[in-house]
Amino acid sequence: MDDAGFNLDAAMLAMGRRAREGARALRLSTAEQRTAAIAAMARAIRAEADAILAANARDLAAAQASGTPEAMQDRLLLNPARLEGVAAGIEAVAAIPDPLGAEIARWTRPNGLDIARVRTPIGVIAMIYESRPNVTADAAALCVRSGNAVILRGGSECLRSSLAIHAAIERGLVEAGLPKTCVQAVPTADRAAVGLILSGLDRTVDLIIPRGGKSLVARVQAEARAPVLSHLEGLNHVFVHAAADLAKARAVTVNAKMRRVSVCGALETLLIDRAAAQRLLPPIAADLAAAGCELRGDADARALVPSMLAATEEDWRTEYLEPILAVKVVDGLDGAVAHIAEYGSGHTDGIVTEDAATAEAFVAGVDSAIVLVNASTQFADGGEFGFGAEIGIATDKLHARGPVGAEQLTTFKYVVRGTGQTRP
Amino acid sequence: MDDAGFNLDAAMLAMGRRAREGARALRLSTAEQRTAAIAAMARAIRAEADAILAANARDLAAAQASGTPEAMQDRLLLNPARLEGVAAGIEAVAAIPDPLGAEIARWTRPNGLDIARVRTPIGVIAMIYESRPNVTADAAALCVRSGNAVILRGGSECLRSSLAIHAAIERGLVEAGLPKTCVQAVPTADRAAVGLILSGLDRTVDLIIPRGGKSLVARVQAEARAPVLSHLEGLNHVFVHAAADLAKARAVTVNAKMRRVSVCGALETLLIDRAAAQRLLPPIAADLAAAGCELRGDADARALVPSMLAATEEDWRTEYLEPILAVKVVDGLDGAVAHIAEYGSGHTDGIVTEDAATAEAFVAGVDSAIVLVNASTQFADGGEFGFGAEIGIATDKLHARGPVGAEQLTTFKYVVRGTGQTRP
Repeated sequence: MDDAGFNLDAAMLAMGRRAREGARALRLSTAEQRTAAIAAMARAIRAEADAILAANARDLAAAQASGTPEAMQDRLLLNPARLEGVAAGIEAVAAIPDPLGAEIARWTRPNGLDIARVRTPIGVIAMIYESRPNVTADAAALCVRSGNAVILRGGSECLRSSLAIHAAIERGLVEAGLPKTCVQAVPTADRAAVGLILSGLDRTVDLIIPRGGKSLVARVQAEARAPVLSHLEGLNHVFVHAAADLAKARAVTVNAKMRRVSVCGALETLLIDRAAAQRLLPPIAADLAAAGCELRGDADARALVPSMLAATEEDWRTEYLEPILAVKVVDGLDGAVAHIAEYGSGHTDGIVTEDAATAEAFVAGVDSAIVLVNASTQFADGGEFGFGAEIGIATDKLHARGPVGAEQLTTFKYVVRGTGQTRP
Repeated sequence: MDDAGFNLDAAMLAMGRRAREGARALRLSTAEQRTAAIAAMARAIRAEADAILAANARDLAAAQASGTPEAMQDRLLLNPARLEGVAAGIEAVAAIPDPLGAEIARWTRPNGLDIARVRTPIGVIAMIYESRPNVTADAAALCVRSGNAVILRGGSECLRSSLAIHAAIERGLVEAGLPKTCVQAVPTADRAAVGLILSGLDRTVDLIIPRGGKSLVARVQAEARAPVLSHLEGLNHVFVHAAADLAKARAVTVNAKMRRVSVCGALETLLIDRAAAQRLLPPIAADLAAAGCELRGDADARALVPSMLAATEEDWRTEYLEPILAVKVVDGLDGAVAHIAEYGSGHTDGIVTEDAATAEAFVAGVDSAIVLVNASTQFADGGEFGFGAEIGIATDKLHARGPVGAEQLTTFKYVVRGTGQTRP
């Protein structure tokens, strides 16, 4: 194992150096080349569908054998329809406007200096993610679109699927005349590779994007030695206010929780206004139960809906990603805002109310990447925002927040053009 | 010392908790209150000028006694004119438009969802900086303008000046009805305080802004446990291309190096195009020598200007901040771009040329925060860019790059307003 460890170290450092070369090639590429490469990647994924689905079947068999929960298995699963969705998804990225070289702003100073703020690539991005093999394709396409080389480190549970998709991506890059070093995949499930990426690979990594749950959060916090753009937990809340329209509250809550329980925009804790809990909670709870959702309530919620299980403190801190919902009765807007400040993950939180002033107070009081009024939390998605595709939902406050598409993966520089000006 | 260490630990953690309270107060404050607070801070600095100048005199006496280089002493010095500049500088911050609450973008989706991207404060910022007592005032004003609480950790060499300015700032805050917790200063020169700030103070710090030289860079890289926006070295280059106008080249070079040698936008390495070195270098070198600048050249430069000292590898890596300039003869544009990629700090680099195509190739090839054509590097300044004031020049690639003013100290959230929409 010492030998294997040594080899991984050297292999990862070499991957970082190659990524620098890929970044240089992308910086010198044209928008047309980048578009062609993404389109070729989509074609190659379709052409290699059999191999990708076979690899995915092996991942799924391993997941079943090791007793992986069903929600997680659903995240892993590829079938012909989903794989077509993967290919179509990156074609959507090929179709969005190329962000590079755009002048974000340009102005002239009184001394005649012409200052332009011009969009440029970040350089080398390293993605660390779990399950969901489509992330491999989306991340590759978005990084090529934004001119960044990327090192992909997919979770061990979908490694076979990711590597099969990556093989197709390489084929697409080569077809378009770009080097394979633009998109590299870590070929091993060895978790030591994550540590090496977090070290920054001898300063070749400009940005680390972790996308995952609590254990990844903790590791990134402790070890990262390069800038991080986190895509972490979605511990999302819906607050049903006393002035809520019951029909909207029922529809929004059931959709937010049950449309797809395994996405990061799924509802995890329902907050009900004490002032109208009796009117609102029983019918909402009945809808959720009918849809197959397990409810875990505090004492006040259980007094209204005795069939609920009892929630513990741990439930307020849990991103289930399963058909389970924590339910709490709170004291009005202030109670809801305080609960979200204490337990939320800064991802997506919503209110259902017909009272405009309360809605605006909720919007002002909740400091999450996405704050919704009368809409399902499952709209937390780059596609739904109109960004074409996304690498995920950023839960940090800096650089980008919320859905991260190609534009959010760029930086800028100032170009100052003069005629010999000196500063007095 | 164990007792002192224990106390510092507790004191810094308490400072972090108080900063959270200050951030909450600022988030709930109005633009008018923030403007009034900054104006009151400026008035208080003028009112306490005697105390501030007396504190500065003690800092300077200590610096002289310990043999601090003159360029550093110049950075420390306050006199009545410079202190009036400090007060006027934060009045300029009071005058710039308040960035908070602005809708950066707003659009409606086909399903009727109304999505707004709204500017919000980051939260708690910790500034770690060296010398230059005006930074204390600028940082306080810019953080209040952008709704962020700030913890200031000025260098030990200007601690007395910084604390005297901070006392005036507190007076201004209180006068405007804002709590002192909005702007706190670390009251000790103990370097352990820097380590504690870099630890993130139990996650109360949202952003660390270090502004300083190589030793601070290294420490931040190794220890930071919160997001960082670095304001680090300005190892800036001017490339005088073969097609340069000699008069512009002479004026730009002398101004870039000698206008003020101790600022981060000062020129540190001059690159001369081999194809026209004989025409260009001797007159530029004569101007620089006449202005009192020591020149250190490579062999090719010394062949043309024998009075130069010999440069070593270390000179290409040195931000002098003194009247010393490294000079190298390079092979055209490619040689200049390669040298800057190898030795530059990504701060500010410029070209002097009359050839438009070469200028644009330089702009495309140099990935620095600010790239200049035919203008002095000393324009690397938020005021010169029209930003009102700046906290410094960011040398990282993420979130903000180049001059960091109030707008660059904000983040945003998405506000999504619906009428009961659910996701299909």
